[in-house]
Amino acid sequence: MSPKPEQYDVVVLGGGPTGENLADRAKAAGLSTVLVESQLIGGECSYWACMPSKALLRPAHALAHARALPGAKQAVTGQLDAAAVLARRDEFTWHWHDDSQVEWLRSTGIDLVRGHGRLAGEKAVLVDGERLLTARHAVAVCTGTRAALPQVPGLAEARPWTSRDATSAAKVPGRLAVIGGGVVAVEMATAWQALGSQVTLLVRGSGVLDRMEPFAGELVAAGLRAAGVDVRFGTDVTRLGRSGGGTGEVTLTLGDGSTVTADEVLYATGRVPRTDDLGLETVGLEPGSWIEVDDSCLVRGVAGDWLYAAGDVNHRALMTHQGKYQARIAGAAIGARAAGTPLDTARWGVHSASADTAGPPQVVFTEPEAAAVGLSLADAERAGLRVRTVDQDLGQVAGASLYVDDYRGRARLVVDLDRDIVVGATFVGPGVAELLHSATVAVVGEVPIPRLWHAVPAYPTVSEVWLRLLEQLRG
Amino acid sequence: MSPKPEQYDVVVLGGGPTGENLADRAKAAGLSTVLVESQLIGGECSYWACMPSKALLRPAHALAHARALPGAKQAVTGQLDAAAVLARRDEFTWHWHDDSQVEWLRSTGIDLVRGHGRLAGEKAVLVDGERLLTARHAVAVCTGTRAALPQVPGLAEARPWTSRDATSAAKVPGRLAVIGGGVVAVEMATAWQALGSQVTLLVRGSGVLDRMEPFAGELVAAGLRAAGVDVRFGTDVTRLGRSGGGTGEVTLTLGDGSTVTADEVLYATGRVPRTDDLGLETVGLEPGSWIEVDDSCLVRGVAGDWLYAAGDVNHRALMTHQGKYQARIAGAAIGARAAGTPLDTARWGVHSASADTAGPPQVVFTEPEAAAVGLSLADAERAGLRVRTVDQDLGQVAGASLYVDDYRGRARLVVDLDRDIVVGATFVGPGVAELLHSATVAVVGEVPIPRLWHAVPAYPTVSEVWLRLLEQLRG
Repeated sequence: MSPKPEQYDVVVLGGGPTGENLADRAKAAGLSTVLVESQLIGGECSYWACMPSKALLRPAHALAHARALPGAKQAVTGQLDAAAVLARRDEFTWHWHDDSQVEWLRSTGIDLVRGHGRLAGEKAVLVDGERLLTARHAVAVCTGTRAALPQVPGLAEARPWTSRDATSAAKVPGRLAVIGGGVVAVEMATAWQALGSQVTLLVRGSGVLDRMEPFAGELVAAGLRAAGVDVRFGTDVTRLGRSGGGTGEVTLTLGDGSTVTADEVLYATGRVPRTDDLGLETVGLEPGSWIEVDDSCLVRGVAGDWLYAAGDVNHRALMTHQGKYQARIAGAAIGARAAGTPLDTARWGVHSASADTAGPPQVVFTEPEAAAVGLSLADAERAGLRVRTVDQDLGQVAGASLYVDDYRGRARLVVDLDRDIVVGATFVGPGVAELLHSATVAVVGEVPIPRLWHAVPAYPTVSEVWLRLLEQLRG
Repeated sequence: MSPKPEQYDVVVLGGGPTGENLADRAKAAGLSTVLVESQLIGGECSYWACMPSKALLRPAHALAHARALPGAKQAVTGQLDAAAVLARRDEFTWHWHDDSQVEWLRSTGIDLVRGHGRLAGEKAVLVDGERLLTARHAVAVCTGTRAALPQVPGLAEARPWTSRDATSAAKVPGRLAVIGGGVVAVEMATAWQALGSQVTLLVRGSGVLDRMEPFAGELVAAGLRAAGVDVRFGTDVTRLGRSGGGTGEVTLTLGDGSTVTADEVLYATGRVPRTDDLGLETVGLEPGSWIEVDDSCLVRGVAGDWLYAAGDVNHRALMTHQGKYQARIAGAAIGARAAGTPLDTARWGVHSASADTAGPPQVVFTEPEAAAVGLSLADAERAGLRVRTVDQDLGQVAGASLYVDDYRGRARLVVDLDRDIVVGATFVGPGVAELLHSATVAVVGEVPIPRLWHAVPAYPTVSEVWLRLLEQLRG
């Protein structure tokens, strides 16, 4: 006997920030909406990614800045108190309880179904095989990703950390091996080294953060080394083993036969979409695959304009803020299609997640921080644009030299010479996270360079790097 | 016998940042240029304003942030080391020597004449009555301002500090009375209180920073009080006296008959232009007055299009970065007029200092910081614009709550409803200085609100306040 269908206008699969925002926008468009989530409402971001990672990092950065300033450093005689940092992290994750998020959902009038949802053909979702939710207008898949783990002998027995463990660990391991060279790897290496671990960072390639301008990875790697992290490039882990019948230390065997021992090992080697057990096959899609969408987040290859995918699961831009952005756009598109009003899917239109393709902003909260938006030089060249880059040593900017002593950092603009606009910007240095939005507004606003000359940075801020960069463009 | 004229294309009076930049732009336009300065090359900004004030403030802010973060605060057991802060300040002012600036001038090919320059009729400047510099094309007045001191009985005998003393003092006074409620007053009250003085801030009006949105002054005053400053509004100093034959403490008598005693007293009650001994009368202008200019910085009321005034002396926007901005524009205008090429003085044109009138960016480096650009609500109403404001409690933004515990701050956008653009923005809170440029680009770039929705702030930064503000605009 099949369950009695419960009908809604919109069914959202996945209650992370993307699902929450999409449901919120659908509800605001006057559509009855239900959210299906088997774990915590709030998702990776709230409990195992953005929030706990930044909570782990921020006290270390603040202390590092105080230590880098004569007058302040004399006041800093002790060490970072790891237990206090972990306790603050626990508060930011609400001790891994989602009561406040559930309360928010309730206040918006969005229904919540706890359980594992799977597509069950067109406009239908079956939760735990027991409840059948049907959608008049749309189903949105916002199930995100989980850590990818490679096939390596001994991996399971070694009980490696993934990003979830690295952000939620209750104790500081004496030695931590981190495998990977992306954002999770460098942020967690930074955090745990500051908290007292001896971190070894094992990178397969020749550098970290390889999607950013090359100097970003170089400066971040130099920062890791300066903090005491043992950074090794060109490494390959071929085998793992944990001693003491699984309770002792982990030994990693590398491709060159050498070994690294550690108390914990973090695998940060990529993400896979949470689509393997989602009933994708019932709508003609491939289970386990990334879900391809158009700029309104409508899934390609499914007839009827009813299936959407937003956030990391569509592989456009794997960041919380871009997921929420897609959620706003997809929610508006669902509302417009439901109301039968025309969509504006032109570039920068209300129903086009154009910022994904222009190059989403990203901040890596290492020390130094690395922040980028738009196209890197390599991106621009691949896109066939006629560009010019200008670089500026941030240490030569008055505001940066005041910020900390011996400031090391660099900025780059990528300028489209045919349109005379900035199409990419990268800032690397202590405290640059908040500089990025100036570039995001310039790139997205397509503000012409002659107009940017009138956007005067206040003296003496780090933002004055804009003046130096523009001067070089003129020179 | 009159001195033999030395002829240049351009004569610049005043070697602060504005004069230096104007000379640089004139020289770059192929014009022979001489700079006249009687004091240090580099001006107030380098030796007695921006740089030393920020050098005094930054270590205190960094330490305050570390103290506001569990985990970091446990490491901070000592106090700010005032001697070390003062020593770092001395390095940032090059110990009040201008060798490096003179070296830069030399490298650019700009001539330097040390001495006091006065206009001597059309296109002529007499230096110390001895050297006559004549200009083929332009004379530019960039002499800035000095502190205004009111007429108060006993003022001279009390030997008050002005901004120069407050930024260059070699010792921390036990008690410091600060008179004023503007930027100099609140920054120096913040700095010296942090360095160990007991500061009393005596404000004539009912609040500080009265040109900004009201909440800016309220939050900054609250920050001063939290730091231990005795902030008093509605006060009026009617008499001063220094005991011990001029070597003892200062007693200030207030309008209500009460007294305040201090070791030093800082007068930060405004600025007057350095135009009283500049030979303005030889070109038909009033000595001692602010010099009125058009948007290309050409002086009004002087025939022949040869006299310019840039920087604080023209009273358009008394900030180093705006002076340098005007210098770039005036230098380009001088170059264009000399070459006989047409000027672009339309709004946002190459030869129009339009940002001065759109509302220049300003950052006040107190704790919390206050940063604003464009029009305040009051400005916009005075200008007759149809506007809407949206406010956001910064403490509710995830990135701010991570930045320091118990984050207190506020942001406001002023939106022109007829043009659907942001015409003003104010941010107040710890570490907001670098947020401002995002608003400056939006205001100056006149980026439409629907496009700003695509400028996604990275999560979790303080910049995410933009999303909250836009959501309120939509709501």
